[in-house]
Order: sequence, then C-alpha cells, then structure tokens
Amino acid sequence: MKRAIELYDTTLRDGAQGEGIAFSVKDKIYIAKALDRLGFSYIEAGNPGSNPKDMEFFKSIGGLKLQNAKICAFGSTRRCGMSVADDENVKSLLRANTPVVTIFGKAWDLHVTKVLKTTLHENLAMIRDTVAFFKTAGREVVFDAEHFFDGCKNNEHFALQALNAACEGGADVLCLCDTNGAAYITDIYSMTEKVADRFGKRTAIHCHNDTGLAVAGSMISVDAGACQVQGTFIGFGERCGNADLSTVLANLQLKRGMSCIPEENMQLLTSTARGIAAVSNIKLPHEHPYVGSCAFAHKGGMHVDGVNKLPRSFEHIQPETVGNERKFLLSEVSGRSTVLFEMKKIDASVTKDSPQTRAVMQRIKELEQNGYQFEVAHASVELLIRKVLGRYTPFFELEHYKIIGEQPVEEGESSSTAIIKIRVNGCSEITAAQGNGPVHALDCALKKALSVFYPSIKSASLSDYKVRVLEPRDATASKVRVLIETADGDSVWTNVGVSSDIIEASWVALVDAIEYKLTKDKENGKL
Amino acid sequence: MKRAIELYDTTLRDGAQGEGIAFSVKDKIYIAKALDRLGFSYIEAGNPGSNPKDMEFFKSIGGLKLQNAKICAFGSTRRCGMSVADDENVKSLLRANTPVVTIFGKAWDLHVTKVLKTTLHENLAMIRDTVAFFKTAGREVVFDAEHFFDGCKNNEHFALQALNAACEGGADVLCLCDTNGAAYITDIYSMTEKVADRFGKRTAIHCHNDTGLAVAGSMISVDAGACQVQGTFIGFGERCGNADLSTVLANLQLKRGMSCIPEENMQLLTSTARGIAAVSNIKLPHEHPYVGSCAFAHKGGMHVDGVNKLPRSFEHIQPETVGNERKFLLSEVSGRSTVLFEMKKIDASVTKDSPQTRAVMQRIKELEQNGYQFEVAHASVELLIRKVLGRYTPFFELEHYKIIGEQPVEEGESSSTAIIKIRVNGCSEITAAQGNGPVHALDCALKKALSVFYPSIKSASLSDYKVRVLEPRDATASKVRVLIETADGDSVWTNVGVSSDIIEASWVALVDAIEYKLTKDKENGKL
Repeated sequence: MKRAIELYDTTLRDGAQGEGIAFSVKDKIYIAKALDRLGFSYIEAGNPGSNPKDMEFFKSIGGLKLQNAKICAFGSTRRCGMSVADDENVKSLLRANTPVVTIFGKAWDLHVTKVLKTTLHENLAMIRDTVAFFKTAGREVVFDAEHFFDGCKNNEHFALQALNAACEGGADVLCLCDTNGAAYITDIYSMTEKVADRFGKRTAIHCHNDTGLAVAGSMISVDAGACQVQGTFIGFGERCGNADLSTVLANLQLKRGMSCIPEENMQLLTSTARGIAAVSNIKLPHEHPYVGSCAFAHKGGMHVDGVNKLPRSFEHIQPETVGNERKFLLSEVSGRSTVLFEMKKIDASVTKDSPQTRAVMQRIKELEQNGYQFEVAHASVELLIRKVLGRYTPFFELEHYKIIGEQPVEEGESSSTAIIKIRVNGCSEITAAQGNGPVHALDCALKKALSVFYPSIKSASLSDYKVRVLEPRDATASKVRVLIETADGDSVWTNVGVSSDIIEASWVALVDAIEYKLTKDKENGKL
Repeated sequence: MKRAIELYDTTLRDGAQGEGIAFSVKDKIYIAKALDRLGFSYIEAGNPGSNPKDMEFFKSIGGLKLQNAKICAFGSTRRCGMSVADDENVKSLLRANTPVVTIFGKAWDLHVTKVLKTTLHENLAMIRDTVAFFKTAGREVVFDAEHFFDGCKNNEHFALQALNAACEGGADVLCLCDTNGAAYITDIYSMTEKVADRFGKRTAIHCHNDTGLAVAGSMISVDAGACQVQGTFIGFGERCGNADLSTVLANLQLKRGMSCIPEENMQLLTSTARGIAAVSNIKLPHEHPYVGSCAFAHKGGMHVDGVNKLPRSFEHIQPETVGNERKFLLSEVSGRSTVLFEMKKIDASVTKDSPQTRAVMQRIKELEQNGYQFEVAHASVELLIRKVLGRYTPFFELEHYKIIGEQPVEEGESSSTAIIKIRVNGCSEITAAQGNGPVHALDCALKKALSVFYPSIKSASLSDYKVRVLEPRDATASKVRVLIETADGDSVWTNVGVSSDIIEASWVALVDAIEYKLTKDKENGKL
C-alpha cells in the first residue's frame, strides 16, 4: 500500500497574487475542473471577504459536480477585540458555503505586535475562536500558520502555541507556512517532525520559492511526516511564486513511490499544466520540469546519440509517463544526427555524409545567424529540407501586396486593408480583404486568393501567433521573429519568419504555413 | 572565519545546450568578464574539441586579464583503445591552453557497456590515463563523474572505482554529476559525505533541474562536505536547466553564512544576472529568486500594508543587498494603498477615501479588463492619474495617419511609409517618414512632426519594444499588448497600449510615451 499524500492547490488564491495574473470567473472554473479531473484533493478558490469576484465564483462552483476535490474558502482569523460572529470576513467565509474553510493566523510574534498591533494572548484567542466557529458550523478546517518558520526562529514557544490554539479550536489540519520563502530545508524537516509528533494532527506544508527551495521544502516536509502539500499547480504566485505542485506531484508519485492522484491520470499532467498556463495567460517555461516543451529536449550531439541508443541514458523517466514527448533541438551544436533524423523522414536514402545533409546544415546555420530559430518550427525545417532535396513544388508566386492602415477609423470599419496579387500556373488572381491589423488583413486576402485554385486551403486556420522582438535595444527598427501555428483538423504545425518589418516576417511564416499545408494535401491526394 | 565555497560556472558550455542559446565569441567574453568581476572561482568556457567557435574563444580569452576566475576547458576522456596523446579531442584540450582542464568520464556502468560499448576495465583506464596526461602537462584537473548518482544506484562499487581512477591519475577535484537531474536530495547528501570522507579530495557537485531540485541538491551537497558547486549563473541549460548559481550563491552567502564572493560584490548580483540574460537573448523570469524584477514585488493588499509597516514582515532580505528593489504591483487586488502611493507623488493632499482615488482604481480596473497591464508601465499610470486629477495638458491632437506597406520592395527602399497630420495650438503640421516596418515609420513621422513645436522631443528615443499577443487562440485577429520603453538621457520610462491592431496598440503607447516626456520637460522648464 502506497503512502497517500493530499494535494492542496491554491492557484486561484495565492496564484492570483502573481504578476500579470487576473482570473475571470470562467477561468477559475476551468482551472478547478482541470485539477479535479487530475485527482487533486483540495482546491482553494479564493478569499470571499477581500474580493467580490471570488464570491461570484463560490456561487457558480456550488452547482458543479466535482469528483475528487473539495473546495476551500480562505480567510483570516477574526479581527482583534471583536466577536467572531460579528466579523464581516468571517460572515463572507460562511456565506461562501464550502465544505472546507482555511483560516490563516499569525505564528510569528513580531507580526502580532508590529503589524496586527495586538497582544500575543489576543492573537491566540483569535485563532482558537475562529477555528471553533467554523467547526461548530460543520466545516472541515485547515489552519494556515502564517510565517511559521520565521516565527520558530524568533520565538518557537509562541509559534507552537499558535498551533495549539488551532487544535483547541478543533482544526483538522495544521499547515506550516513558509510565508517569506526563506526557510532552510533541514529546518523544515525538523519542525515538521516536531509538529507531527507533538499534535498528532494531519500536518501540511506551504512553501514559497524566494530561495529556489519550495519544491525541496515540500518534499522534505513529506519525508518528515507531512501528509498534505499546498502550492500552485505550475508554481506562479506573489514574488518568486509558490511550491510548484506539478513538480511535487510527479516527484512524490514517480520518484518517492507515494500516491497523490490515480496512477492512470499521470499522463494528463502535461496537458493540464499547458491548459492552466493558457487560461492564466502566462507562458509555461519551456524548461519546466516534467511538463515544459523542452523538459525532454536534447541538443548536445552526444546526448542525441546517447538517447538514440538508449533513452534512459539521458532521460530520467519516459516522457509519455507524464504525457510529454521527446524532442531533438535543431541547431548548430546539435550535430548532423538530428538533421538526419528529420531528413530520413522525407528520403530514407540520405546518409550522415550525403552532400545534401551538409547543405541543410549550412542553410540552417545561415538562417540562425539572421535570427531564425527552428527549435519549434518543424514545418519550416521540413520545407527547407524538401527544397534542398528537390522535393518541393512552389504552389504560387506573389506578384505584389500592399497593406494600408489608418486612424481614425469610422465605426464598424476595419483599420487595415490588404490588396494581393498572386499567380498560379500562369493565371493571376487579384483580391483584397480587411482585417483587424495588417497581418490579419493579409492572412485573409492570401487565403481568399488561393482558395480559387486550392479549395482545401479553407480548412487551414491559424491557431497561434507569437511575436518575439530580437535585439530589442534597436527598438522599433529591431528584427522581429514571428511564429505561426496552423491547424487543419488533422494536424498542427509551426512556421517561422524573421524580418525588421513585422508584416514581412509574418508574410514569410504565413507563406511557409500554406506551402506546408498544400504539400501535405498533395501527398495525401486531397488537392 | 567563514567557510569558503568555490563557484564553478558552466553557462558557456552546459548553458549553451539550452533551447535558443547560441553565443558569439563576443557574448562569451562579456559573460566571462561579468562572472570574473563578481568573484567566481572557475569559468568553464567550452569544449574545444567539439566546437570550432569555442577554440576561437580560448584564443581571445588568453589575452584577457581576469582577477578572480580561472578558465577551464571541458572535454571527454580519451577514446577507447587509443593512446591519450593521439586523441584529437585531447589535443584540442591541450591547445586551448587553459590553467584548468575538466575531464568527464563515465561513472554509470550501463553507459560504459551500452553507449560507449567498451569494458568497465577499459573505461577506468581511459579516466586514469586522461587525467594523468593533463596533470603531467601541468594543468589543474577537475574530474566530472558523469551520471554519478544513477551509477551509484546501479553499481555503487563501479561508480566509486571511476572516482578512484581519477585519483590515481592525480585529479584535483572530484565532481559528482547528477547528469539526468533526478537524484534525490538525501541521496546526494549521503553520497557526497561518503566521497569526501573516502577520497579526501576537494569534492564538487553538478546538478540538473529535471525534478526541480537542482538548487536544493547543490545546497545539501555543500552541507555534506562539497567545497565547489557547478552550475549556470541563471540556471539555463539542456532540458530543464542546471543548478542556478545566482540562487545558490545568494543562499550560501546570505542564508548559510558561507563565503563565495567578496561581500561587497553581492549587490552586483541583480545587474550581473540581467546582463547575462540580455546577452544570452533570454528573458530573465520576473519571479526569479533574488534577481527577478518581481522577486520583491508585492501585490496582495495585506502584504503591501505589512511591508509599509515593517519590510521584513514579507521580505526575507533587503532587496538592495543583492542590488534589486521593492515594487508594489498595481492591480485590482492590490488595494488602494498602492494606487495612493503613486497618487501622492503628484498631489500630496489625496487620501485613501478621496473620490479621485476611487476614480483611478475604477479606470485601472476597466483598462485591465481590456487587456492592459500596468505592473511595469509606470509612466502610463502616472498619465492616467494626472488625467483624473486634472493635472494633464494634451500637447497635440492627431488629425489623421496612414501607413502603407508593400512587397516586393526595391533595393535600398524601405518597406513602410507613414503619413501623419497633427495639430498643436491650432496649427497643423503634415509630414511623412519611412521606416523598417509600419511602427518604425510611424514613430519617425510623429517625432518629425512634433519637433517643429517641441524641439526637446528629439532627445527621446525608444530603448525597448515588446509585443505580447493576448488570447492567442484567435491568432492574427487577437489583441496585442505593446510595451514601449523610452529613454532621454535623464530617465527611462515604460508605456503600454492594447488593440487588436498592432499599429494602433503601438500608437497608443507611443503617444503616451511622448506625452509623458513633454509633461516632464514642461515641469522642469525645458519646453
């Protein structure tokens, strides 16, 4: 029987304190459902007293049927010198009507006297009263001991008294919070062990990442007896973020032999992380452990060779275990074997020493020096290889395009217009389209002109568009790299374009994306 | 006397394996000098055998006078069945002419038999011979025991034999590498302790971050007796990156009382990290411990209040210690005190309950819902506040602009032209300018027209330009957020604009940037 560890996610509350994070109610519901499906035990959904949006969410979530997770409302102990039942925050927490209430209280004496400006004795009463109030109301109560580890350094006796007050109130879980994120791992180990032994309650850990040790602190606290880990699913939060639960989860389950979520859900890890990042409108770091797009990407020539011989030579798990995949990064240092791997898909007779292999390497190097990057733009690489191998047919020629943008714009009008003239097999087609911005107008006009000759082009639509400014010190005259992701129901592909003119860079990527689509359609007899 | 720990940076070698990293020789020299100035002990600069660019670097670095750091060349043991002196890689390493040579060899029996395809006995000879060769040549030799921890799990006896062979060859440092990045911290502790005790050599640790534990693994190895930590300065590297030395350094020096660099250099930490990120053309994560722009940023209303009362209530160190600074993030959840802090700079009589304070909060909320983000765009916030407080004079009115872009472009011509007509105090000015791309053309045309009325505008120039695509699922019709950074010799400021048309979004930010500049000039009597 594997040891079970509860995961308690606070993306919707502590995560919302991260820079640039602002969840709508719809976003929150998406995230709660994704974490529930994965198998999380607790989802802390907000502080109904401090944020009216949170209260709206609590109303909506009440109607949702969750399979695994309990929803928690988060709030502080009652104010000093006030009865619990009269406290507005406490009333909001009660109205949120969640099965679990998480109450945070001060465990660092300095905070009590200097920030709250009350007595240590009153602070203990605030904890005891508030926890008892929610226990009487039938809730499961988690007590978050704020600044527990800093508190222990300053006055361990008082920090433990705060936990004791929560126990007297009937708390179900004692959570040790490293609020400032600088507790050292060995201190976390010894204090967790002491608390678990002394109070005999379920003990939880809540780490912040200010010293880069939040994942380690969570792991070692579990080693010392904690049975619950609090954090945010992909680690974002105030300052340097919270313990990253996607990493903690994978470590506990795949490396430490414990059970956090059903075994069969592990392969949802990557898609869950990417979905939550998209909804939160943040970029999931490529290098993110387990779930990043480069977590299993190999670039060094020797590593690529090693993995080809024996995957576990440079991979600590099989990428599929967590729903991720292996990648070989194309670049000047990756060596010929990576390029060869791609070339062989098109012409199996090519070898490491073929002149074409050298020609492809050479072309990639030249383009990289001009700001191109092929590590994600596989469709552009395939076209480049086809061109070198003579396996490429151009589908159209551009005669001319012109884009016009102006301000002010009349109500209901678009700000940009594109005019395009192309030639296919000697026939010219000229057309125009409007759009929100010049690239959108150009995309619409090009597809409109091409669909006269190739109706299948209509099934392709842009699914992502990214702009990266290179050499930003040159400001608006700097080069931009545009990545365009296109989907057509069967597959998804990415192309790249670079220019000092954002429209031209987008044009290069757009044309590549369309040529790739038409090449595939031709091979599959769909043209 | 504080315990001294050597820092060994491999940004130039292992870091170069990261996605999107490609250093020029000039980049490498910048990074080496920055790390030397900070006080690093060792800089691993490349693998001269595998990369001709690296050899070029070794030639250049020979002429540089470094104050603190020794340069290391990195390479593998001799090939199997060959004499050391005949091995091409070994010859390259010797030609690199560095005071230190780092030799990596296999410590995992599986790699020896399945990847190298040789015998365990020959592998030990390869290690012994290669180390001895460089000791005879007068070099300091670091032995990197590749896959040491995986090797120990599979066959501890052999992993230790590999270290023993390096000692027989005369190695100065034994470095324990967690090449696949999944060794657990307690295992790192026990194996480091065993190696340090058994061989009595200087012991080093080299962690990768595949399980999010590279910083922790490095710290705990030092606890167990390691005296050298290998990593990359801001953590990038193949797959999930290497141990982040900026974090390890700050943790060791500020939290664990050890000495890695001269005390007075600690405040260079943030600028060094930002410089290396810029040269490497990567974005330093805002949430990066110690050196990120949000490492000391407070958003939660209670945290902002707490820090105002007592900084250490929510800050584990003073941000200035590492050359960073405190920030309050403006947002709907940050509460009125942050907004008030900014408002009081313009009108000291404003209070928390002034109707203007509510009006500013309201306006920020509305704009945020439309995709604006003010957390970095302080100049846009100041203008917004000035507008609400009636402390704002518009400097010009736009009558019309039109931008035209076309392809193909004749040799020597610009791809974009902008025509603009503005009015200042009843006088109209119409002009045109060309540029690389529509935004550049528009920026040039606007400044040209305004300089007729306000000559001081000529001193303002754009220093950074960033584009972020919002809701990327709508592809080229999605909204974009543009951030423009402007400098005029005295100061630097950032403005934001949002629109579904990239040109309009850039226009909004450009206008704001110029209004801000003119407002300042007017106040300072420079207009």
